[in-house]
Amino acid sequence: MSSDFRLKEQLPELTEQIVATYTPDDAINHLGHCPLPSYTAVVEILLDLKDVLYPGYRRKTGLHAGNVRYHVGSLIDSLHDQLTTQIARALRHEHRVQKKHMDCESDIDFEAKGQAMAIELLKRIPELRRILATDVQAAYDGDPACQTSDEVVFCYPGFEAITVYRIAHQLVKLHVPFIPRMMTEWAHKQTGIDIHPGATIGDHFFIDHGTGVVIGETCVIGRGVKLYQGVTLGALSFKTDDDGHLIRGTKRHPTIEDGVVVYANATILGGKTTIGKDSVIGSSVWITKSVGPRTTVVLEKPQLRVRSGQNDELVDELNFQI
Amino acid sequence: MSSDFRLKEQLPELTEQIVATYTPDDAINHLGHCPLPSYTAVVEILLDLKDVLYPGYRRKTGLHAGNVRYHVGSLIDSLHDQLTTQIARALRHEHRVQKKHMDCESDIDFEAKGQAMAIELLKRIPELRRILATDVQAAYDGDPACQTSDEVVFCYPGFEAITVYRIAHQLVKLHVPFIPRMMTEWAHKQTGIDIHPGATIGDHFFIDHGTGVVIGETCVIGRGVKLYQGVTLGALSFKTDDDGHLIRGTKRHPTIEDGVVVYANATILGGKTTIGKDSVIGSSVWITKSVGPRTTVVLEKPQLRVRSGQNDELVDELNFQI
Amino acid sequence: MSSDFRLKEQLPELTEQIVATYTPDDAINHLGHCPLPSYTAVVEILLDLKDVLYPGYRRKTGLHAGNVRYHVGSLIDSLHDQLTTQIARALRHEHRVQKKHMDCESDIDFEAKGQAMAIELLKRIPELRRILATDVQAAYDGDPACQTSDEVVFCYPGFEAITVYRIAHQLVKLHVPFIPRMMTEWAHKQTGIDIHPGATIGDHFFIDHGTGVVIGETCVIGRGVKLYQGVTLGALSFKTDDDGHLIRGTKRHPTIEDGVVVYANATILGGKTTIGKDSVIGSSVWITKSVGPRTTVVLEKPQLRVRSGQNDELVDELNFQI
Repeated sequence: MSSDFRLKEQLPELTEQIVATYTPDDAINHLGHCPLPSYTAVVEILLDLKDVLYPGYRRKTGLHAGNVRYHVGSLIDSLHDQLTTQIARALRHEHRVQKKHMDCESDIDFEAKGQAMAIELLKRIPELRRILATDVQAAYDGDPACQTSDEVVFCYPGFEAITVYRIAHQLVKLHVPFIPRMMTEWAHKQTGIDIHPGATIGDHFFIDHGTGVVIGETCVIGRGVKLYQGVTLGALSFKTDDDGHLIRGTKRHPTIEDGVVVYANATILGGKTTIGKDSVIGSSVWITKSVGPRTTVVLEKPQLRVRSGQNDELVDELNFQI
Repeated sequence: MSSDFRLKEQLPELTEQIVATYTPDDAINHLGHCPLPSYTAVVEILLDLKDVLYPGYRRKTGLHAGNVRYHVGSLIDSLHDQLTTQIARALRHEHRVQKKHMDCESDIDFEAKGQAMAIELLKRIPELRRILATDVQAAYDGDPACQTSDEVVFCYPGFEAITVYRIAHQLVKLHVPFIPRMMTEWAHKQTGIDIHPGATIGDHFFIDHGTGVVIGETCVIGRGVKLYQGVTLGALSFKTDDDGHLIRGTKRHPTIEDGVVVYANATILGGKTTIGKDSVIGSSVWITKSVGPRTTVVLEKPQLRVRSGQNDELVDELNFQI
Repeated sequence: MSSDFRLKEQLPELTEQIVATYTPDDAINHLGHCPLPSYTAVVEILLDLKDVLYPGYRRKTGLHAGNVRYHVGSLIDSLHDQLTTQIARALRHEHRVQKKHMDCESDIDFEAKGQAMAIELLKRIPELRRILATDVQAAYDGDPACQTSDEVVFCYPGFEAITVYRIAHQLVKLHVPFIPRMMTEWAHKQTGIDIHPGATIGDHFFIDHGTGVVIGETCVIGRGVKLYQGVTLGALSFKTDDDGHLIRGTKRHPTIEDGVVVYANATILGGKTTIGKDSVIGSSVWITKSVGPRTTVVLEKPQLRVRSGQNDELVDELNFQI
């Protein structure tokens, strides 16, 4: 018994029916246009950058003072070429979308612009290393389960997400379109941590466990901030213009000042909400207004219904000290 | 110094001890049976289907009106063969489990059944494309951080999860066993979004950020619904029969009507719970009863303990406007 | 138009600037040291172990009583060698960190120690299979959407996370450093479930959906416990010593006794918090104190603000039965 190969004769017709749906005004095909940045190439760029930022940890071992120069020089050369190509693609795509062109032709030298942005990113690597070293220190200082800082670089998902965010944020500052979001969505997939590349985040930043953390585009986060899993720094609601379209680009997400700790699953919403310096927001707290510096906010007397024993008796919840 | 290779002489005995635990009534081996669907092949099927649904985005670039027909025709041909093989495996496996057979023999022509189901799925691709285009539009309309609809197709995890759900749900409707759940669990791994393939979901559906979203098997979701990260549409409790076994197949999960928005980390539970048309459920709300249409439900006066300053003074929580 | 290759002449200088930041006291390079365990090799070890634990499911199909011995024997041989090498690397690294040595030299025979630990882990495979079969049974018994136990082994993320945890926990008990955390962080990436390898967890354990679950290092979990997505078993706060450094190694996380069920997004905090036998903790509950056996704790009368209709009228929240 087997499948009937005469039935396959209908496949060409089926293909025609599918291809007929690929029309120019169909928003979910990308035919005949200039190529988008390649997802695979962008991921490769991130892996190469991590090899330069943290030499000796992951892909290439056996590096020492005598050979690291050749390894890094080769990576930088390749990063220059790949970044130039992919940034040029992103710039051409953005130009086409803005001008509503259907083809790739333009007088603009996107490759030259891409190259300048690529070199500028590479120049910022020493500064990125300086900041990322403070993030490693913050993770070691903040996690009692951490034995050595090597563990942080090697396998902490929070540090992975912050690394990718810090790279992508530099590209945002250089006005590179499209690629920063591709990068942070790749990190989101790896770690469950969704940091918008447009957010502003100070040094000594630590996210523990991390799954479910969302940091919105217009957040401003100070130095030495610590977040736990499930924390949302989000928008309260979205304003629309007179035609009912969303207004894009206003500050919709909160400000978190230096030294704040936000425990698991807390939710802080709104563009005018500020959590003052050195404050502590307890687990599962939901806040939409500002609090001053050195303030502790925790859940109090949760309204719980407690039944115990076989007779399903209701225990007075006010006397029940949870 | 090195490991002692004489110690390796005990490995064959160790192997024997392990193999001795592979007994026929042991539920965690799959020996001597007909093969299960291949996880690798099912993932490859999803990637090929995405290439047909959204030509030109990911794996194959440089497509245009002149060559897309050959590319898609080749994918459809390969999808026909792969789907036929994997669905036939799933059907044979289901048959064996239901009949409690230990071997693969049967009078049923599983390949012919698999082929008919495979062709039927491929016929539904134009309709899938129509619905998925509404989901892209909903994402663009609903996210102020989104610049172009290309971003949605390219890297939005919510759209990835919805795409895989919509494919898997068609297989559920065709009564294909096992494979739909493999597909949505793969998407769950990629995105942190767990949509059961049995759920019913209308068009213009958008999940933003998405990590931690759970949509249960018997949910019914209308058109134009928007969910944020951490939303659970779950069961209130599970009914058991007189023998204490779970009753499978009843409606255990809520109904969400057209146009509802559910903000981050809200929890809606129960098979009789209905959220009426155009209602808004606020962030972190927990609901187990129905609400009517055009209703807004938000957290009110959260019971918070607030201490500020060095002297650790308790601020009156009722006057504290968070 | 294209990029200007003369600009590439500045890349060697840029490389020099980056290499100059790789100093010995820089915590984020790993140069000239003995190699760390290889991430790729550790993942390969996990995949090989899963093939031995659950023969016939994933990578190698077509196994039967006549050939499984050769397949498993070959995997065990390779696992012995890989585990020996990687454990030796982890031991040497730990020794170097503790002694603050900068080089790899030592009188200790790390390979011999690694081999002994590797063989001991392999000896525990039959016992691991016995416990993991109880976890599969718990998943089938606890999930109404589950059709066959094969689904659990094949694609349940909770079972994936528990499998990796149980392997890693054996390595913790054998005092293998570094590698257990690499393993559970890999599982965290795959599943969104973060179980610290140091936690103690009884048999018949089931995690449904799972994204966002965090189980801390010093948790003690009994037999037959069931957790849903988003559950945190965490620390209440961290004690610091007189110098302000975290005290590591005290019991910071709760005890969950036999038969407890914890529903979605509940948070249980504190090293002195015990949830008594057969208790039920409802969805979204936040608990920092102990409860006795057979106790049910659910949210009661949530403080919600409900507005309905066009006139935005406030419905009395006490009368509103959500």
